[in-house]
Amino acid sequence: MTLENFETLLKKYADLMIHKGIAVKEGDYVLLNANINQAPLARLITEAAYQAGAAYVKVNWSDDALSRLNYTYRSLENLQEVPQYLIDEGHYFVEKRAKRISLVSRDPNALKGIDPNKINASNRAFSNALEEVRNATQSNKVSWLVVAGASQEWAALVFPDKSPEDQIDALWDQIFKTTRIYEADPIKAWEEHENRLNEKAAFLNDHQFDALHYTGPGTDLTIGLPKNHIWESAGSTNEKGEVFIANMPTEEVFTAPDSRRADGYISASKPLAHGGVVIDGMKFTFKDGKVVEASASEGEETLIKLIEENEGSASLGEVALVPHQSPISQSGIIFFNTLFDENASNHIALGQAYASSVQGGTQMTQEELAQAGLNRSNVHVDFMVGNAEMNVDGITEDGQRIPIFRNGEWAI
Amino acid sequence: MTLENFETLLKKYADLMIHKGIAVKEGDYVLLNANINQAPLARLITEAAYQAGAAYVKVNWSDDALSRLNYTYRSLENLQEVPQYLIDEGHYFVEKRAKRISLVSRDPNALKGIDPNKINASNRAFSNALEEVRNATQSNKVSWLVVAGASQEWAALVFPDKSPEDQIDALWDQIFKTTRIYEADPIKAWEEHENRLNEKAAFLNDHQFDALHYTGPGTDLTIGLPKNHIWESAGSTNEKGEVFIANMPTEEVFTAPDSRRADGYISASKPLAHGGVVIDGMKFTFKDGKVVEASASEGEETLIKLIEENEGSASLGEVALVPHQSPISQSGIIFFNTLFDENASNHIALGQAYASSVQGGTQMTQEELAQAGLNRSNVHVDFMVGNAEMNVDGITEDGQRIPIFRNGEWAI
Repeated sequence: MTLENFETLLKKYADLMIHKGIAVKEGDYVLLNANINQAPLARLITEAAYQAGAAYVKVNWSDDALSRLNYTYRSLENLQEVPQYLIDEGHYFVEKRAKRISLVSRDPNALKGIDPNKINASNRAFSNALEEVRNATQSNKVSWLVVAGASQEWAALVFPDKSPEDQIDALWDQIFKTTRIYEADPIKAWEEHENRLNEKAAFLNDHQFDALHYTGPGTDLTIGLPKNHIWESAGSTNEKGEVFIANMPTEEVFTAPDSRRADGYISASKPLAHGGVVIDGMKFTFKDGKVVEASASEGEETLIKLIEENEGSASLGEVALVPHQSPISQSGIIFFNTLFDENASNHIALGQAYASSVQGGTQMTQEELAQAGLNRSNVHVDFMVGNAEMNVDGITEDGQRIPIFRNGEWAI
Repeated sequence: MTLENFETLLKKYADLMIHKGIAVKEGDYVLLNANINQAPLARLITEAAYQAGAAYVKVNWSDDALSRLNYTYRSLENLQEVPQYLIDEGHYFVEKRAKRISLVSRDPNALKGIDPNKINASNRAFSNALEEVRNATQSNKVSWLVVAGASQEWAALVFPDKSPEDQIDALWDQIFKTTRIYEADPIKAWEEHENRLNEKAAFLNDHQFDALHYTGPGTDLTIGLPKNHIWESAGSTNEKGEVFIANMPTEEVFTAPDSRRADGYISASKPLAHGGVVIDGMKFTFKDGKVVEASASEGEETLIKLIEENEGSASLGEVALVPHQSPISQSGIIFFNTLFDENASNHIALGQAYASSVQGGTQMTQEELAQAGLNRSNVHVDFMVGNAEMNVDGITEDGQRIPIFRNGEWAI
């Protein structure tokens, strides 16, 4: 690692996660999911959490190579075994209201070539078994944060023309830039950033559009919005009223669509790394809220399996607005990682909607959320659809059209 | 890593563990405990296990730096919390009869300076909560294996005068030497080694000595042996009749003493790394099977806490015979790791006896084992006591003395 002041930057990054991201307080439990290739950062995060008063920090380690071996050799049946102790572990940390950090650094191609049936079956089994735990995060019962760390395999994919040493430096550099770690006071920089995003969200919330109309190359899609929807940006609030940032970086302003209303077609503008497989060149046609046709130039089998996974996986759960000239987009880099790529581009997600995207949603039952139009599913997968020529109009209940995006940029 | 053919040697080492150590068969579950600094070897072990037919290999990762942070910052109360899911996890893998590998590579000083009350209280809480799981291993219900991997911190302590690169190479070299990895066919070399050790064990089993009398510098101790005791060596047998090797390397022939009979004094001949703390210069005085006096020139507080831990921790649970000129002893190296140091020297252990050390023991209840003289405890800590001048006599029931060791070497 030759990046100047790397140790100092890594420490600032860990401090930002703990003091701003999940905002650790005295007595908190903290759950950190990390790949073993992120050990130096995971240790700094752990120490920062303890110094902020955490009672216990649990680190759950993962390893790409072991994941690949598991999928290669375990049988389809064995991969679907979810021992009760694992479910209980999930509940234990929800009961402790553990604040969660997912530190992602996975090789986007970690599972390339593995039978997608195995991956889907295993994901489905765990997702179903851990539904309540997942809902605790998605309804903001607990504070949670997704952040990234650079790994060699990931960096090689993002910067194929650089030397291995330069690849990982370049990826760390991008991570530090986009998370504002080079600022003298990253926490202050984040507060200013939040304020800018909140202004856009306030405008959209005031207008309570009935639908959004997307147009651009390969795209002409109208997406309905539910009554009393809420546009959110960087900051979220857990059930105790504590504020947290769910994604670092984040450039998006997002809400839930009405999962029963989407008609037209839309083309993805960036590839997507999903479950260890890269999918590229995706096109979707929607009717009455559902994908009725989908194709991809790469990874189509994985895409089709995802859409066919269950009823909810063919409908939308999120619409997010990101200017084409966002700092991440300006870098011109394709990260093969949703945390970055979704913040470079307008995106939509198939699958589960966030309960916080509608008034009173975090107090609703699953059935009430579905009735309100918020898609219920055990998946949530973002697709990047923004480009420099995209226009988005807001359509009011009485049919008025108000420009929201023009040529990929905010028009409000 | 500059050791020649390192990758090939590491692969041979992994294969030895899987094919000879725990002897994986079709459909087996395997549980591997490993430090994240052993990722390359852990992946090879996992792949070898799957190729041998394992249904599932679970890797539990640990990290010295996180352990230290946990002990530093968690409160005494918090460190004693044992969530039910962790106990259930232990039972799950016992029910699956998972074969266990503990790959040890810990920095012997990882916890130096940490309050020993915290370490002991936490160990006690986990040991009590996981008693049944521990008994499953110690009574050979499941196959288990302890092996080592070289880490930088450990290698630095063993070879303080070498360069960092040479330190780790030298430690791997010793590990490969003592586990017979340089042999063309390590499995065959292990079979021959087992046969040699089994001859000594057979002699001792035939004689059924009533007691052993140890003499040497700083040592004059008589230890009683229980009726129907069994001397074991490298090979053990699990409840399904499958043979396994519990330690690699191993040079010892061992049994359980009668925990009620030990009188005299004995001096340790090597330091002991226990729970992240190095203890050195230990002396023990026994009366009626119990330690009545103990001292150490380094780490005395940790030693005293260990002995006072509970009733069983002041009595003996193992006596093991290793010639002073064992290959490990010949290297002249102090490893600060019991797996190696105990195989360079006669040793005795305070705490739990192995149920397999007495006829029918693996079928006995805890109470029956205690009645048979086999110490019951939630600790098991080996102390190295052998030296070049040590004599050991076997004393028969009718008072005959038969030389077993003379000047540190087998006399039989």
